[in-house]
Amino acid sequence: MDKLVKVAIVGAGVSGLKAAETLISSGKIGKEEIVVLEAQDHVGGRIQDSNIDQSKLEIAYALGAMWYHDSLVNSILYELLESGLLKDDDVYCDDKDGPTYTSDGLLDMSGLQINRVMEEAGQFLQLYFKSNRPDASCDEVVKEYVNAHSHFLTQEQNQYIRRAMRYFELWYGVPAEKANGKMAMESHQGRNLLNKKGYTFLIDILKSKIPKSCILLSQPVKSITQLENSSKKIEVETKSGLKVTAEYLIVTVPLSILKLNETHDYGIKWNPPLPSPTRNFINTIDFAALGKVIFEFNSVWWDPNEDHFLIIPDEIDSNDWFNSDGSPKPFSFPALAINFSKIYNRGASLVVLTPAPLTDYLESYPDQSWTYFKPMLEKISIKPMEDPISTITSHWTTNPYIRGSYSVLLTKTDAENTSPDKLEGLKLGNDVIRFAGEHTIAEGAGCVHGAYDSGKREAAYILNELEKK
Amino acid sequence: MDKLVKVAIVGAGVSGLKAAETLISSGKIGKEEIVVLEAQDHVGGRIQDSNIDQSKLEIAYALGAMWYHDSLVNSILYELLESGLLKDDDVYCDDKDGPTYTSDGLLDMSGLQINRVMEEAGQFLQLYFKSNRPDASCDEVVKEYVNAHSHFLTQEQNQYIRRAMRYFELWYGVPAEKANGKMAMESHQGRNLLNKKGYTFLIDILKSKIPKSCILLSQPVKSITQLENSSKKIEVETKSGLKVTAEYLIVTVPLSILKLNETHDYGIKWNPPLPSPTRNFINTIDFAALGKVIFEFNSVWWDPNEDHFLIIPDEIDSNDWFNSDGSPKPFSFPALAINFSKIYNRGASLVVLTPAPLTDYLESYPDQSWTYFKPMLEKISIKPMEDPISTITSHWTTNPYIRGSYSVLLTKTDAENTSPDKLEGLKLGNDVIRFAGEHTIAEGAGCVHGAYDSGKREAAYILNELEKK
Repeated sequence: MDKLVKVAIVGAGVSGLKAAETLISSGKIGKEEIVVLEAQDHVGGRIQDSNIDQSKLEIAYALGAMWYHDSLVNSILYELLESGLLKDDDVYCDDKDGPTYTSDGLLDMSGLQINRVMEEAGQFLQLYFKSNRPDASCDEVVKEYVNAHSHFLTQEQNQYIRRAMRYFELWYGVPAEKANGKMAMESHQGRNLLNKKGYTFLIDILKSKIPKSCILLSQPVKSITQLENSSKKIEVETKSGLKVTAEYLIVTVPLSILKLNETHDYGIKWNPPLPSPTRNFINTIDFAALGKVIFEFNSVWWDPNEDHFLIIPDEIDSNDWFNSDGSPKPFSFPALAINFSKIYNRGASLVVLTPAPLTDYLESYPDQSWTYFKPMLEKISIKPMEDPISTITSHWTTNPYIRGSYSVLLTKTDAENTSPDKLEGLKLGNDVIRFAGEHTIAEGAGCVHGAYDSGKREAAYILNELEKK
Repeated sequence: MDKLVKVAIVGAGVSGLKAAETLISSGKIGKEEIVVLEAQDHVGGRIQDSNIDQSKLEIAYALGAMWYHDSLVNSILYELLESGLLKDDDVYCDDKDGPTYTSDGLLDMSGLQINRVMEEAGQFLQLYFKSNRPDASCDEVVKEYVNAHSHFLTQEQNQYIRRAMRYFELWYGVPAEKANGKMAMESHQGRNLLNKKGYTFLIDILKSKIPKSCILLSQPVKSITQLENSSKKIEVETKSGLKVTAEYLIVTVPLSILKLNETHDYGIKWNPPLPSPTRNFINTIDFAALGKVIFEFNSVWWDPNEDHFLIIPDEIDSNDWFNSDGSPKPFSFPALAINFSKIYNRGASLVVLTPAPLTDYLESYPDQSWTYFKPMLEKISIKPMEDPISTITSHWTTNPYIRGSYSVLLTKTDAENTSPDKLEGLKLGNDVIRFAGEHTIAEGAGCVHGAYDSGKREAAYILNELEKK
């Protein structure tokens, strides 16, 4: 059965759903005039809770997005507050200074002033890029900082600063030696508020405002054709053979899908091919793999009063992060263990963040998670350590429709192209084929609110175009 | 005896001396061709050590400039290092997180996450001014932040944030309710390194490179006349009647002197009057009064391991900061007590920073210092508190040639004029009358390295002009 609509949206993550909801709520697009094609059998994209059956503690953990970042300017936060859908205690600020550990045990970040040196290294990163120095990785610039300023660093500061600066990997989801140092120039706009209520309720709200019939699940898109003989018509064909013809199209698939060759099983065939500026942009930005491993225990054997525990890696050459059998060596990557027992005031669980390429390994071999983390988490124990009663991992890298976490800048030779500021203005599409998602917006890139705002933006564009006619 | 020179410099602080040293070291200006007129009977300006006789511990305390700020870009620091004149342990990084107290005792800044909320309020200040909101004081913007974000603030965070944000006063030297919030947009470029060796050695280095005969002490300038009939000639007359005629003039007097009416005893008469853009600039920027009170004791009765102790004020309306007899009420102003015993590893002394208008009072009534600070410093005691064996105060506000500490932006209606970025480009003078000093430079404004760089800048300008001829 083919469909003829005014607007087709590819992807039912937060950006696609927000675009659909905005169009429908406007009253200017009827429910017969819009369709959302979702590849998976559920909506939400990178917002997903773990199945409660996996948990011995009956907790549904957020496997993807978990915080309201940039809480001073987070549009979702203020919309939910205004509409009374969010109560003050639905969020939790878990930014409290937490203890930091190395393989040698507790590291006195404040007493040794390593926290100050980290701030200074961050300022050095900003100065480096402000003075138009060549593109360099986060780690390369930190190395330069240490070389230039070793006069004023104590032995411990010298010893730990590069390793400590790898905490950035838990933001970017890629190793500091690959992450473009320029990302350190993006400043946070307010604290991070942990979304205790979970993001699925936001997905449910959006879904509830879109007629059921508009969302077609399990419809991965195979090709997108802009019909020549009928200008302003786009034909979207799914793998199951469904053909949707639309006047406007919003493509919200993850950047990882856009990056696939069109002959790839999960790639999209563009006809005519994407214009080269769009193609260039897609090639310039990369896709990270931040992952999560959740361990549940019978009891809390760590300090129950801390929000989180940071474990910084040993000084290990990246060639030696993995054993010859492919398994990762403990203390090869930084880890942030979030104390969910404190946040939810029940149970005994730790949610551990992992960067690529560790995430790729652990998501492929989830049963190896405890082997990797046991010697690391042992450092935080204040009572005899227990083995977990259940382990839940994210599976973003193994999900062929997601293939990682979110967009990231890696080190490139073309400094001009990799500026995060360029994202917003970049016209990925044309006047009828539009793009939305966390990778299409500078303010909130990589975040739920960025995706949300980009969906709103594209819906507003289409409504404005329709108005003109 | 009148003098005819190529270059006259008014003021022998760091900017004037650096300008003179640069001109002389160039080899292009002979010692007969340059004169530095200093109003006081000593050089150094706002760099001054206390008289060692005042100290029971035989310590000469820096009464003015004390830190190498912006240590990533501090020109003095790197020049001294390169020339071998500064050893690594001549500086001390006293940025370690220190404990914070209120009139109720120790405040758990980290545990209550007041430190995070302070960071967030700082980010709010930046966002406020980036969105071109009307000029407002630091305190007004923080108040707006609290109102807008009280949802996500705990009771304690709500209770303490405005008072805690008054620590800014110890940077700016003026009350947060007068300080222009825009100043929060200036970012620090590296840690602050306490200059253990003192800044007077820098003054001595500069002085040693300038022939003695070039510096005339106790010669306050009364008038500056640009002679009409002989273009490019400037006549500087001092109170004692000395007349110096020069081709170029660098005026490095503090902004506070430039702000004086020319009929004022310590004002300068300009003939012709300063052009109105220059006059406007001088009126737009204000002059702060950061002061110091140094208490020496028989023994250390505070935690010997802390670098400093921050005491935040009570919530007191600014009308009630002072009693009817003019004396300040304790806990009306923030105070930072620096633990010099730790920094110098000897003696028992605390160096306490004070903002205006407290500085003005204590510098006028130094014997009231202990009365004011005793109940505040009592909070930091871990042993029975002692009375001081000696008290030394700065005297910047009472020195008629200084009249305060350094330039500051207050709240004005004309937002355009008060941008700190404007400083650098502002042509204060003309092609032969030039200005230098901490108030004439954006990068390093208010700091020794800013003054130093401005002196270098003006010397370079004159050398370049002479080259052209």
